[in-house]
Parts: sequence; C-alpha cells; structure tokens
Amino acid sequence: MTAATLPVPEGYRILDIDGVRSQLADLPVSGRLGGQPADWVIEEVGDGNLNLVFIVRGPESGFAVKQALPYVRLVGESWPLPLSRAYFEHRALTIHSEHVPRLVPKIHHYDDTLALIVMELLEPHIIMRHGMIAGTEYPGFADDIAEFMARTLFSTSALALPADQMKAMTAEFAGNTAMCRITEDVIFTEPYMIAENNRWTEPWLDLYAEATRKDTDLKIAVTRLKRQFMGAPEALIHGDLHTGSVMLWAEDTRVIDPEFAFMGPMGFDIGAVVGNLLLNYFSQIGHEAAPGDRDAYRQWILATIETVWNRFRRQFLDLWESSIKGDAGGDIYGAGLFADPEGMAALAREREHYMDRLLTDALGFAAAKMTRRLLGVAHNIDLECISDTKCRATAEVRSLKLARDLMVNTDRYPTMGHVTDAARAMNTHQPDFAD
Amino acid sequence: MTAATLPVPEGYRILDIDGVRSQLADLPVSGRLGGQPADWVIEEVGDGNLNLVFIVRGPESGFAVKQALPYVRLVGESWPLPLSRAYFEHRALTIHSEHVPRLVPKIHHYDDTLALIVMELLEPHIIMRHGMIAGTEYPGFADDIAEFMARTLFSTSALALPADQMKAMTAEFAGNTAMCRITEDVIFTEPYMIAENNRWTEPWLDLYAEATRKDTDLKIAVTRLKRQFMGAPEALIHGDLHTGSVMLWAEDTRVIDPEFAFMGPMGFDIGAVVGNLLLNYFSQIGHEAAPGDRDAYRQWILATIETVWNRFRRQFLDLWESSIKGDAGGDIYGAGLFADPEGMAALAREREHYMDRLLTDALGFAAAKMTRRLLGVAHNIDLECISDTKCRATAEVRSLKLARDLMVNTDRYPTMGHVTDAARAMNTHQPDFAD
Repeated sequence: MTAATLPVPEGYRILDIDGVRSQLADLPVSGRLGGQPADWVIEEVGDGNLNLVFIVRGPESGFAVKQALPYVRLVGESWPLPLSRAYFEHRALTIHSEHVPRLVPKIHHYDDTLALIVMELLEPHIIMRHGMIAGTEYPGFADDIAEFMARTLFSTSALALPADQMKAMTAEFAGNTAMCRITEDVIFTEPYMIAENNRWTEPWLDLYAEATRKDTDLKIAVTRLKRQFMGAPEALIHGDLHTGSVMLWAEDTRVIDPEFAFMGPMGFDIGAVVGNLLLNYFSQIGHEAAPGDRDAYRQWILATIETVWNRFRRQFLDLWESSIKGDAGGDIYGAGLFADPEGMAALAREREHYMDRLLTDALGFAAAKMTRRLLGVAHNIDLECISDTKCRATAEVRSLKLARDLMVNTDRYPTMGHVTDAARAMNTHQPDFAD
Repeated sequence: MTAATLPVPEGYRILDIDGVRSQLADLPVSGRLGGQPADWVIEEVGDGNLNLVFIVRGPESGFAVKQALPYVRLVGESWPLPLSRAYFEHRALTIHSEHVPRLVPKIHHYDDTLALIVMELLEPHIIMRHGMIAGTEYPGFADDIAEFMARTLFSTSALALPADQMKAMTAEFAGNTAMCRITEDVIFTEPYMIAENNRWTEPWLDLYAEATRKDTDLKIAVTRLKRQFMGAPEALIHGDLHTGSVMLWAEDTRVIDPEFAFMGPMGFDIGAVVGNLLLNYFSQIGHEAAPGDRDAYRQWILATIETVWNRFRRQFLDLWESSIKGDAGGDIYGAGLFADPEGMAALAREREHYMDRLLTDALGFAAAKMTRRLLGVAHNIDLECISDTKCRATAEVRSLKLARDLMVNTDRYPTMGHVTDAARAMNTHQPDFAD
C-alpha cells in the first residue's frame, strides 16, 4: 500500500510557507494577525511525528497552523495515514472547548479539503515534557489536567449523555479507526513481540526485551487491555494524552493534538498522564548534575501523580452527583431507581466502585503506555536525551519493572499512593547488567 | 410527541391487502408464488406488537410480508417508532444468512421506502413459545440455537473481525438507537420502579413487585447490566432472542425478527434464550392436566438449557481455535503473541476465562429478561395463558425469586448445571400468599 492508494479530497495539496500565507490571506480571521500577508513571519516547525505545523506571526498576534499529510511524516509515504484525522482532531477540540474552554487552544478555522486547522499560537507555553526534563515545577498542572479529564470524560460518557447521543458520537468517531489501529499495534502488540520498528537501549535492555516477549502473564494482561481499548466506548477520549500533548507555563495549561480521539475507555487517558509522569520520574537520574539534585523535583512528580488522580476522582464524582441531583442526568443512573435514602446510599457506593474500577483501568493503561516507550517504535525524549546509555537503561529497567507489576498485579495497587510508594522503592533498584 | 413528528420517506404508505398484492405483482420474485396476483390469498396476521405482517399464499409457494409502522402497533400512534427498524432487521437477517443460512428465513425482497421485507413463508413451523406451552419437545432446538448464537456472535465480534469492520458495523447499527431505548426502558428500568405500563398478576404479586422496587442490591445489579447493554459493542446481537423469535418444527429451526439488532453484549442473546426457557419451565404448573404430567417435559427443558450453553460454548471455542490456527484471526488475539507452547496454553486458559465471563453475563441478562416479563409492560403467553391467577402467580414468584438470585448472586452459578439445579429446587417453593 502506498500513499497514492489513499484518497485525498479534490483540491487537497500539501502547503508550503507561501501556500499557508495565501490561504490565511483569504480568511477573515487573519485580521487578527495584523499587518499585510507579506508582513507575516511563517516557519514550519514540524516537531510532531505525523503532520506539518507552521507558526505564523503577525504584528498583532500569532497562529499555529497544522496540516495533516496523507502519510506519517516521520516515516514517509510508505506509511499512509488518512487526512480524516484532521477532521477528528478539530471535532474533538470543538467538543473539548465546550467543556473546558480555558484548557484547549482556540480554533480559528478548519478547512476540510486541506485537512488544515488554524489555532491560536500558545505563548509562552512550552511542551510539558521539555519543562519536566529541565526540572520545572508546574503548580497548576495537576488541577488543570484533572479538570480537563474529569469534564471531558464525564460530559461525553453515558453518565451525562442520553443513549442516542452516545451512539451518534460513537458512530462519528468510529471513522477514526486508522488512528486507533496505530495505538492497537504500537502500544498493545508490537512491544511484546519481534517487530520491525521496535527498538530499545542496547545492549543493556536486550535481556529485558526478550523476557518481556516471553512473559505470558504480561501478554495476557496487555491483550485484555487491548480488548478493552477496542471495545469500550465509554467516553470521548483524547487518545494520546502524554506530556507531549500538554503545552503550558506557570499560569496556563492547554491540551493539544487530540487527533487520536475516539469513543474509548476513560482509563486510557488517565493512564497516559500517569504513565508519562512515571517515566519522567525515573528519567530524573539522567537529568541531575549530582545524585540527589532532583530529589525535590522527584517528590513534586509523585505528589503531582497523586493529586492528578485525587482531584480527577473528586471532580468526576462532583459532576456525577450534581448531575443526578438535577434533571440533567444521563440515561443510566438517572432513571429514579435510587431516589430513596437507601438507594442514594447504594448509588454513592456504586460511584466509589466505579471510580475504583477506573483507577484499575488507568493503572493497566499507564503500564502499557510506559512499556511501549521503552521497547516499541516511539520513545520519549525524557529518556532518549540521556546520553549515558547505561544510566538511561537503569531508568528504563526501573520503569519497565514497575510497569510490569502495575499491569499484571494491578489489584495490589488499590490507591494511587500504592503506586507512588512502589515508584519510590523501584527508584533504588540497581539492575544486574551483565557488563 | 406524535407519530406525525416522525419522518417517513416520501412514498411511504401503510399497505392493506390490496396494496400488498399490487406491490408483489411488480416484483420479479413474485413468480415464485405461481398463478396471477388475483389468485394469491393474502391475510394480515399481525401477531407481533410492532408491525404489520401479511401471509401471502400462491399456488406454488408462500411469502411472509412484514411492514414497519411509524409507531408501535400494540399501542398506536401515541408511541412513535422509526421505520428504520425494518432496515436494521433486513441488515441483520442478511448478515445472519451469511453465517447461518439454514437457520434464518430467506429474504426475497427489501423495500426501504415502504419499510417492507418479503420473506419465505415458514411452514409447518410454529412459534416455539406456543409449542412449549403444548409440551412439544424439539430435539433439534438446542443444537440449532447454540449454532445460531455461536456463529452469528463469534463472526461479528472482535475475535473474528478486523477493528475497522467492527467499528463500521458498530457505527451502522448505532442508528437503531430507538429500538435499544425500548430495551433500556422496559427491561432494565421500568420493572424496578413505578411505571405507567407495568403490570403483574394482582393481587398475588403486589408485595413482590413492591419488594422488587425496594431491592437496592437488585437495582444496582440491573443498572450494571443496563450499563453493559448500552456500552459493550461485542458483537451483532439479535437483541430479542426469546422463544417468540424462534419458528420451528421437529426438523427445522429458524430465528426471525432481529429488528432490535445492534452491536451489544453477547450475553444478552444467550440470556434471552435461557431466561425464556426458565420462564416456560416454571409455567408448566399451569399447563399440566394433573400434577406431574409435565415432569418429563420439565426435564427436557432443563436438559435443553444445559445443552444450549454447553454446545454454544464448545462451538464458540471451536470457531475461535480454528480462527487462530489459520490466518483469519481477528485483531485481538491473532497477532502472534501466543505462538509458543506456553503462550498457546495461556491463550487456551484465556478462552476458558472468556467463556466463563460470557456465562456470568448471560445469567444476569437471563434474570433481567425474566423479571421484565413478570413485572413490566410485556408479559409472556407462557404464563399469561394460565387462567388460574393463583397458580400463575406461583409460577411467577418462583421465576422472580430465581431471577433475583441469578442477578444478585451470579457468582454462585459457575456452571449452567448450578442454574438448572436451582430451578429444580425453586420449582417446589410454595409462596406464602396472604390470602
């Protein structure tokens, strides 16, 4: 299959800088940039794996312009990928902006033919992953990401939406199947087998990669997670909610790039946040000038993980409880079966049970998200930027071992405190590298 | 909301006998009837709750012609229901005919504008429910319904279909949401609350209905089942697979009326079969001329329940195993993670685990299907035809008590043998009617 086999709309063309300039010149919203088109400074930054990204700066403001290509940018035309992901990204951003307008970039324009999204330019925000490598604390992050997840997930779930709206949304986002397929392959399958695109920190992780491929309990566990990913349309999930999809600075947080969005298990988003924070936690060994320099930052990361979950849990429950008290409850628990005091008490226990189950799901998905960054095709700069490969491998082995336990023995982690305790203990583990 | 608010296609009209005659006269397939249109004997039988059904007999063969109305036939225009259910019924019949052609009626013609399906006339088949009231054993039924479920459910699940086909099918059948809504309301909600359409055998069941409405554990359990019904697109399920949707005689079995079809939990179909067989089992007290006359038939029913499950389980596993041995396996378990002997053994255990989970699901749904026939809007002729209301109530209390235990204490029923043992024991229970 080549890119030529993927249909593109009549009129689609890959834009260059002048193409972006002339496209924008025709849009009323370009007035926000100020000046004349010739005055705009446009550069292609393309720091993502999939798309073209242009930064446009005018005298008065800036835009970020994102265009989907009919293939994976990182790989080229040999890995085709439908342009429709731009449609789903703009749809997800639109839905997110209804529920958490302050936490997503503002969309100025969407062009279906060009698979092009024009958004506000976020400044002075940086990609969170880079900030964490530098050891920057973000005091607002835990509350912000918890609010993002609680509001977007609750509001697009069967706890809030009538069944017909749930089904319509499921049907619409079912079209994003090519993006889901990437996740199914590179997260839930390939890291656990011999696959062409896999890589790991050689030679240190060779035996660990081999042990993972032979770990039957782990493979059963990840396959159950894959089945859940493919068959549990619980809510509109972001689908790629790692610290590279968060842009922020001390006073503002935005979640970007929901092109993997579809109706899936809520735990996948929560797990993406937790797993990527844990990876960064273990990576700190490679970022400190002297041992212990980053101990306070490590503490901040673990505290952040706990706060993310606790705030998410509280806010999700608040939304649920207020939804039931009013008349706006969704179809499932809103039918009045639990209106008496005993029913209210039972429903309160049921909500706790629901949240406990979400935590279990999230920890499994967190583990899957960690493992794929250690043994699969796409790694994290958090670890990749550690040039001492033995040091990097030490961080990776710690990550891999915790992930394995989280996925196989999930019931040993009834609270997020159990997870951070285990991370703290694992951070002293010295791999027995045969060197 | 009135029927007038439901859109019908341009050209839709409700057919009478002459309308059916002239519609058929224009179809090439009417040649199968033989003779001239004026020779055809047409009658409207309309034994269903929702649609018009015409029986057409010509000199050479017969047709069954089913037309959807834009409302519920049983209730009238005050309960609108979209014509699209005819589309989904014909789509489900078409898909079923790919997998179990001998077990569904042959479709001769589908008219989208008229919401009309022309099928073969099944003779000498009768509706299974009526045969069971008469005490007729159907030696082929258990194998046939097990094969129907195993093949239709496996083949439309993520165990057999690639993810994109699963998502496309989920999206297509998401349109049948109005039919799902009926199930959500009349099966999973209304029997457990005060609802206008509820009825039960008064006065005998008054206290039982009240106790059910106050039974918090039961209401939590049924709400979990409802959540699963609404959020688990496991396979294309028939959606209404009771003994009124089976037409058969000694030598042939057909499954009809899949107008509730959508991508849902497999256990719902299995549970519908089991629950309706159990209801008929308990109803036999009202069908025997003298106590014990139907004991052999009771034994046949319970043996049939066990055989249905055991054959389903074996055949589903056979399909799964042969699918994995070949290259046709679905996306989930077919990726080669379990190719070594240890992996094969783990996958075999995983399949057993999957089937155990399906049984648990099925028993919960069986219980829900039983309870709604005792306390909800739509009852079963198996029980309704018992004119001695105290006798009927005895059968109903036994049904209700077993259903309650199946739903709340499902883990006490690890095999179908546990269910039939419990049914046998419950059939001696004498309700303490305060008369």
